[in-house]
Order: sequence, then structure tokens, then C-alpha cells
Amino acid sequence: MCAILHQEKNTKGSRRGGKGASFMYVIIVYDVEEKRVGKVLKFLRGYLHWVQNSVFEGELTEGKFREVQNGIKKLIKTDKDSVIFYRFRDESQVVKDTIGIKRAEIDVII
Amino acid sequence: MCAILHQEKNTKGSRRGGKGASFMYVIIVYDVEEKRVGKVLKFLRGYLHWVQNSVFEGELTEGKFREVQNGIKKLIKTDKDSVIFYRFRDESQVVKDTIGIKRAEIDVII
Repeated sequence: MCAILHQEKNTKGSRRGGKGASFMYVIIVYDVEEKRVGKVLKFLRGYLHWVQNSVFEGELTEGKFREVQNGIKKLIKTDKDSVIFYRFRDESQVVKDTIGIKRAEIDVII
Repeated sequence: MCAILHQEKNTKGSRRGGKGASFMYVIIVYDVEEKRVGKVLKFLRGYLHWVQNSVFEGELTEGKFREVQNGIKKLIKTDKDSVIFYRFRDESQVVKDTIGIKRAEIDVII
């Protein structure tokens, strides 16, 4: 359904000019059985910002992104749960509007 | 939290060379109280593709995007619910991977 960008788009160069790490912007939405929600939530909190029920966002290096994907694979049941990873070259490609409340600003502990 | 692209990015020109309509790619994630979920789901189905619990995706014109935003404003309680709209110049900016099942392919009726 979605076109796939060449991998190079995300791996070439470093926006921060650091130790060769290349960053990308990631949105993750998950739909997992209730008994696994807590584990997935806790795991993703270690890498990204929680923005809404079952939605995380943030910047990751290519390496951390693979770490998140591998971690998720271990935590979920792939025949029952679903996790979608949307990734972008950088945050400037993403225009975001919220209608209603901004969960992330009010739910300090979820 | 997210940088805002200049509005011109989404409104200038037409990818399809049609009657001046400009398209954008949209991902919508919502977190609304259970009693309003059905209405929001039905409404969004009229414009976009359902991809996962509380997640829709698809291409919209600028006009249809405003229509969706206005419709959502009328359907939800803005002091209780939350709907996030992510938009992109076009689908090619979005790289998507799914781990686990692809809900949209198995849940014909939800």
C-alpha cells in the first residue's frame, strides 16, 4: 500500500554530524492483546515519546530503530498482535495537528 | 513537538494535473470514548483506509482534509477525546513496516 523509499534515504549521512549515526523520525502504532499492552508500553517508553493511546513518536538512529523492531518481535504474538512502524527522513516531513486533548500533556502516568 | 512545514508544500500545484486539486497523504490516529468510536470509524471510512484499530490512512485533497477535520470536530468531545492528524506531501515520504498481522487485510468488517 505504501511506497518504499530507498533505504539510502534514511542511512545516508548524519544530520548531527556525530559518530556516523543517522537519525530518522518514527511513529509507531500498536494494537496488541491487553495482557501484552503493559510490556509494549514500557519497552517503547525507553526509546520514544508516548503521544496517545497506543501511539509513540520520536527520533531514532538506524541502530536503535532495529533494536526497537527486534524488541517488539520478542514481546508480541505475531499471529495475534499488530505493530505498524512509519518512518521518515526527519521530523520536518511530518506535519501534525491534534483535535481534542493532547494526551501526552495531561497523562503523566499512564 | 513537530516542525510545521510551510502550508505551500501541500497546496501548491497538483500531482494529478486535474482541476487544481492538490493531494496529500494522511495518517489519522484517534483515541475517543467507546460510545463515539462507531461514529468516528464510520465517518473516517468514508474518506480513508482503515489500517489498524484506531488508525486510518490515505490520500486526500486539501479540501477533503478540511472536511475530515471539521467532521471530526463535530463528532468528538474535544475535552475528552483526542485525534491526531499526520500529513505528508505524498505517500512516497512514508516508509511503512508492519510486525505481526496486518489488520486491514483480515478484518473485512470491524
